[in-house]
Amino acid sequence: MSETRERSFWGWGWADQFQDRETRKGFGQQVQGMLGFAPQEVLDPPALEAIELDAPRAKPPASLGFCTDAPEARIRHTYGRAYRDIVRGFYGDFRAAPDLVATPSSEDEVRAALEWASDEGVIVVPYGGGTSVVGGIEMAREEDGRAVLSLDLKRLDRVLEVEPVSRTARIQAGATGPVLEQQLAEHGLTLRCFPQSFEFSTLGGWLATRAGGHFATVYTHVDDLTASVRALTPRGPWESWRLPGSGAGPSPDRMLLGSEGILGVITEAWMRVRPRPVFRATATVHFREWDDAVAATRALSQSGLHPTNCRLLDRREAALNFVTGDGTHVLILGFEGADHPLEPWMVRALELAADHGGTCPKGPVYREHGEKSGESGSAGAWKAAFVQAPYLMNVLVSLGLLVDTFETAIPWDRFDALHADVVKSVRGAMKEHCGGGFLSCRFTHVYPDGPAPYFTWIAPARRGAEVRQWDAIKAAAGEALARHGATITHHHAVGRTHRPWYDRQRPEPFAMALRAAKRELDPAGILNPGVLVDPEG
Amino acid sequence: MSETRERSFWGWGWADQFQDRETRKGFGQQVQGMLGFAPQEVLDPPALEAIELDAPRAKPPASLGFCTDAPEARIRHTYGRAYRDIVRGFYGDFRAAPDLVATPSSEDEVRAALEWASDEGVIVVPYGGGTSVVGGIEMAREEDGRAVLSLDLKRLDRVLEVEPVSRTARIQAGATGPVLEQQLAEHGLTLRCFPQSFEFSTLGGWLATRAGGHFATVYTHVDDLTASVRALTPRGPWESWRLPGSGAGPSPDRMLLGSEGILGVITEAWMRVRPRPVFRATATVHFREWDDAVAATRALSQSGLHPTNCRLLDRREAALNFVTGDGTHVLILGFEGADHPLEPWMVRALELAADHGGTCPKGPVYREHGEKSGESGSAGAWKAAFVQAPYLMNVLVSLGLLVDTFETAIPWDRFDALHADVVKSVRGAMKEHCGGGFLSCRFTHVYPDGPAPYFTWIAPARRGAEVRQWDAIKAAAGEALARHGATITHHHAVGRTHRPWYDRQRPEPFAMALRAAKRELDPAGILNPGVLVDPEG
Repeated sequence: MSETRERSFWGWGWADQFQDRETRKGFGQQVQGMLGFAPQEVLDPPALEAIELDAPRAKPPASLGFCTDAPEARIRHTYGRAYRDIVRGFYGDFRAAPDLVATPSSEDEVRAALEWASDEGVIVVPYGGGTSVVGGIEMAREEDGRAVLSLDLKRLDRVLEVEPVSRTARIQAGATGPVLEQQLAEHGLTLRCFPQSFEFSTLGGWLATRAGGHFATVYTHVDDLTASVRALTPRGPWESWRLPGSGAGPSPDRMLLGSEGILGVITEAWMRVRPRPVFRATATVHFREWDDAVAATRALSQSGLHPTNCRLLDRREAALNFVTGDGTHVLILGFEGADHPLEPWMVRALELAADHGGTCPKGPVYREHGEKSGESGSAGAWKAAFVQAPYLMNVLVSLGLLVDTFETAIPWDRFDALHADVVKSVRGAMKEHCGGGFLSCRFTHVYPDGPAPYFTWIAPARRGAEVRQWDAIKAAAGEALARHGATITHHHAVGRTHRPWYDRQRPEPFAMALRAAKRELDPAGILNPGVLVDPEG
Repeated sequence: MSETRERSFWGWGWADQFQDRETRKGFGQQVQGMLGFAPQEVLDPPALEAIELDAPRAKPPASLGFCTDAPEARIRHTYGRAYRDIVRGFYGDFRAAPDLVATPSSEDEVRAALEWASDEGVIVVPYGGGTSVVGGIEMAREEDGRAVLSLDLKRLDRVLEVEPVSRTARIQAGATGPVLEQQLAEHGLTLRCFPQSFEFSTLGGWLATRAGGHFATVYTHVDDLTASVRALTPRGPWESWRLPGSGAGPSPDRMLLGSEGILGVITEAWMRVRPRPVFRATATVHFREWDDAVAATRALSQSGLHPTNCRLLDRREAALNFVTGDGTHVLILGFEGADHPLEPWMVRALELAADHGGTCPKGPVYREHGEKSGESGSAGAWKAAFVQAPYLMNVLVSLGLLVDTFETAIPWDRFDALHADVVKSVRGAMKEHCGGGFLSCRFTHVYPDGPAPYFTWIAPARRGAEVRQWDAIKAAAGEALARHGATITHHHAVGRTHRPWYDRQRPEPFAMALRAAKRELDPAGILNPGVLVDPEG
């Protein structure tokens, strides 16, 4: 978390986490058996100094002292962290770089930047942690002749107020997960919103993209943790009252949540926090048959037990994440809370799992505050793999492998058909475009009416053709989802990558309403154009 | 539930529930002691045939065979069921009557009505159960020169599909609570959305107004039970995909939920249903001190136990509803579910209550499916009073008493100050405008970050001046809420009555966005104008 540590300019996370060539080569040999195909020659990324950029189309105005056109800042604000971003960065292609980067230290500076950009017709792309996997922060130069300003909120990273009685905290949008959790921990509190990007992504980014969080049930999205939001629009500040609930018209917060920077720049929010967990119950349940595992997970989702963790990994996913290699499907089950021991909850959950053939050979583990985490078992392996997984993309890119994850949500009654079609379509696309590939599935969140399945695929790349290959496989996945009425995204957002399927999914009158709202609040059309809707339809 | 039974044209509910003059007089004498003031002479409402209406400003078009200008239909569609509606009806004042009433039997007929009205510039007021308490369906003639069509959805009352695996059902908007529950019961399922208006209000009305339901925690609003919504707008149908969850842009459903008929006419929705409860645990907890009762309820709301019922009644509310007259504040606590016995939940809940001085002299009651309801105790008294309460308004009007309820939600940290101010302000207003009055408070729903308090007040009326008196006391209540940042409504909606405070509460850019959306979808401005926003600000 130290600020002296440097982030990779082209790949996921900290630069120092990228291993040397020999280590990566060894890793490639290690996973070859599981994947069923061989990595290619190991390559290295270019030095930052070697990157060539087009000249900026605008100069930083004297009035915005926090604005720069320095090449390094432009390079670092070019892409999110999807595979197609990382592979382009790895090859030194930063043609999509913004012209300017601004790092305001106050809301007044955010306002000044918006006013200047509105007046000058400069596009503003709000920038949080830069971890979008859907092209949410990339403004390709060819799309629009206007200059682009990347507005990085990272200096707005304070927890401004903590209200312990109501368990709410006012937090600035630019705070990353660790930075806000550290400040909350001083009060014995936690937000417990842990998207996989937690280490780098920001509260503002989570709100703008409706990030998925820690809780597998009930409080699945950051939406559910939000008491009020404040944003600056070009027409003025948008701030709702801090309320536990309301029925006063359509929810203003729910219109900002998921707005992906097209209506305004989120600057802060009142979030629902809670004491750090005191009681924890965890269990790892194994299933021989996938259908049984799914049925057990459905029963749990409809039980009213509300597990914190209810993540089902298919046997490939379990192997990929070093949870087990015994060929079983694995349900990672957990309860946590600060009020009461959780045995009755876990006992009933394990009964439900057993009803569907699930076994828990090691039994449940119960812990109280202060006890050692004991997470050396399957749950621990999963947690370690979860945090490390995004780094894997850097390595796979260097090994000449394609990789992606995509996720969705669908009613239980349609899940089996969707799953079969995704497996067939994505494997078929990998075969066609790459000669083969690996596909695994897990559930990240579950609801009484359906699961949120999450797929990972890996395939051999043809060097230089990776983006075209990736786009083709992404399209096969998107089409399979659309055919079954599954959402194009449960918690990765829409951005630019998901637009073709989002456009078919969202009700047309809603798109008309959203376009009208955007024209009203952003008359100059400067805010992140191309995301969610086009100004004229 | 038989359709041969007739609803009161002026008051709440079934006409046959309105007692004779002697019974009402007796009731008045009975409650006099509790209220601290005497009722007036008992009056009777006029006969329906004696009501005089202005001539309709439009004729039913030949193309709409389901449209009428018959006086009785116009009278029955004039008002909601707030006190100010009932008192005007009681005195035979139906000047606000719509010019036409349409009862379409299909979506095609809804579309035809919208097209005709758009072409002719006739205002359309979508009408569900006619139980609005905020002027949501009343289009005063003096406000707008245009003719008004009341569009009654009651013939669209079918459960069209049931999906048992995903526990969802597609239900038409015009189905009332009993009508949809009866159809779901054939499948062993239930929606469990029981607003106090349940007997007469409709699914479409619940969605359009974000009704509050049965569950005191987690699933507090109908919003949380909604998987997708379909509405007809003047620009075409708005239908979201049936999904358990999604992060694809701002939620389209959340923009229709609470839209109060200004964007489109909701025609059906996929709702999340569940098996009828098998296990129930109930308890009645008594507190000597209000602050202790509030602290216990807060602890429960933050416990993660998620009680189904967690309704705190202050001592006046407990007496008014015949729950207890012993001067204690009463917490009605309940858990229910179809999966597992609920002892561990209730045991811990009662420990928390006891930590704050709560006593449960009769102990908790546990029941399984098939056992007698056993609701002869406090919980049963509460339930009976809950359903009957709206009928009380008819009686009080006839006795010359003013009465209203208003509700809100506020963070826990501000509740004490709000409560003190409401008590002072509303009692002060009753004193000033009526010479005195009665005020009680309960919590209908609770959240980890705050309660939803619900207030009831009763005061002596001056006959003929009731609406002015009522408006003055309503204004005192609304101002008290606004001073403390409490929402103007947790689940009664905005309508026309709450506009002054809603306009201060909602963020101005959100109002701009909503106006722009309305102009886009309803270019003729025919849909329920005056509710939520005015077209031009």
